[in-house]
Amino acid sequence: MPGPLIECVPNFSEGRDRARFEAIRDAIATAPGVMLLKSEMDPDHHRSVITFAGSPAAVFEAAFRGVRTASELIDLTTHAGAHPRIGAADVVPFVPVEGMTLEDCAALAHRFGAKVWNELRIPVYFYEAAARHPDRVQLENVRRGGFETPQCAPDLGGPELHPRAGACIVGARKFLIAYNINLATADVEIARKIAKRIRASSGGMPHVKALGLHLKSRNLAQVSMNLTDYEQTPLHAVFERVREEAAALGVSIAGSEIIGLLPMKAVEQAAAHFLAIENFDSGQILENRLRTWTSAY
Amino acid sequence: MPGPLIECVPNFSEGRDRARFEAIRDAIATAPGVMLLKSEMDPDHHRSVITFAGSPAAVFEAAFRGVRTASELIDLTTHAGAHPRIGAADVVPFVPVEGMTLEDCAALAHRFGAKVWNELRIPVYFYEAAARHPDRVQLENVRRGGFETPQCAPDLGGPELHPRAGACIVGARKFLIAYNINLATADVEIARKIAKRIRASSGGMPHVKALGLHLKSRNLAQVSMNLTDYEQTPLHAVFERVREEAAALGVSIAGSEIIGLLPMKAVEQAAAHFLAIENFDSGQILENRLRTWTSAY
Repeated sequence: MPGPLIECVPNFSEGRDRARFEAIRDAIATAPGVMLLKSEMDPDHHRSVITFAGSPAAVFEAAFRGVRTASELIDLTTHAGAHPRIGAADVVPFVPVEGMTLEDCAALAHRFGAKVWNELRIPVYFYEAAARHPDRVQLENVRRGGFETPQCAPDLGGPELHPRAGACIVGARKFLIAYNINLATADVEIARKIAKRIRASSGGMPHVKALGLHLKSRNLAQVSMNLTDYEQTPLHAVFERVREEAAALGVSIAGSEIIGLLPMKAVEQAAAHFLAIENFDSGQILENRLRTWTSAY
Repeated sequence: MPGPLIECVPNFSEGRDRARFEAIRDAIATAPGVMLLKSEMDPDHHRSVITFAGSPAAVFEAAFRGVRTASELIDLTTHAGAHPRIGAADVVPFVPVEGMTLEDCAALAHRFGAKVWNELRIPVYFYEAAARHPDRVQLENVRRGGFETPQCAPDLGGPELHPRAGACIVGARKFLIAYNINLATADVEIARKIAKRIRASSGGMPHVKALGLHLKSRNLAQVSMNLTDYEQTPLHAVFERVREEAAALGVSIAGSEIIGLLPMKAVEQAAAHFLAIENFDSGQILENRLRTWTSAY
């Protein structure tokens, strides 16, 4: 495939009015060269999430169209939702996929923020890998106080937020894998115990968020996870750890599921690990070899 | 990636004269749109193998250039090698990679054979998935008697073979994975026992050829395998079976290696199996999703 690829997963503060949601989604999807991967609206959170990918230039343009349309349609002074928010286009993260580093995406985020402020007069915060202050790496810190009572001045523009559209939090982060492991038990307490043992926040595995849930439809307990850096803490390491913890509690694994998409590299890592392949290299995969060549040809 | 892809792995009866080998290789590699993946000459067998890939049309043209050049440069009446052979361009298998079935490749093989006979007056046999007679599926049967005393009449042309270039055996086969598993022992007898238990020819796993070897450089015993249909007998099934057989003999696995290339699908199968992913689908891999879209766009 020719050229670098990135993904963008903006969150908008509209989850109830379908016409507005579709207008924002269509503003993004009709940008040339962009592939819409997923779009969801959540009435409880009064929020929507739109996932798309393409070349950095195409994604940049599509994201800008989304932010512009959202700022025209959403008025935060009349907004009430359960989810914390500071902007109409609340959070815009750029995610490297192929041929781009996290740093490249952070640089793109900075250019994107400048355009949002210069052309739309919406103040901008930078977070995660694009943060300009160490205490703004965490999204929660930036958003504290929300639209009504922001706790810190924007990185670009401000100090007053835009009267209706608020601010826009722009950043770069790694690809997030949503991964669930189903246990061969209906006992949700076992899933909760395992989740607690493996999640980063209680001293478990780095870059792992985990919850124990009960799946009513299948009467199974599930360890539901987000892996926020699969290169550091791979899918297969999480799987093996959950299997060990479950075995220690006398339970086996019924199966697992990937929610949404996962990068090829995570699949390659898992295969190389379990097959114990020495010196595995992506270039040993025929399609990868051909792809490199097709791009160069 | 746009359009279907195939691979071709012709065997030529020249493994000693580097100038001839390079002339054949270059005739193939300079065909437009073809990627040379590997080329090897073997003086003992007096034989060379050239692996390349591309669109069906590009591979067809490149393979024809290779056969034509080989038939101009190689004279079998003066040839002496350990390996059985019936032609200058001895065997030409077409292998589906992406967007082509084995049947598509067999049809391509039939068109290719017709061109070889019509334009070069070299008689043609068809083998494996392109065989026109059930007893010609196996290459050994077709090649029995060799250039000097062929045991059956060609499928196209003949009955006399070409006076210097002999015949050309054209076919279609599945992708072959060369996979070795190293044992944590230097005892080659253990590798031989395992090889015997798992190979198809002694009633083991279908589509598996296996030998036990001793790796001098590392003082390790190795089970060296060819998997001739990885969709029917996947890499992960072979790995697990070898692990079980080794464990039964009190030995563990030191590691494994892929020789040459393997198809993405084999990697996906292995990851989905070991991670116990329910309803795994190639479309869940971000790059695959994007690729489909890039081709369509």
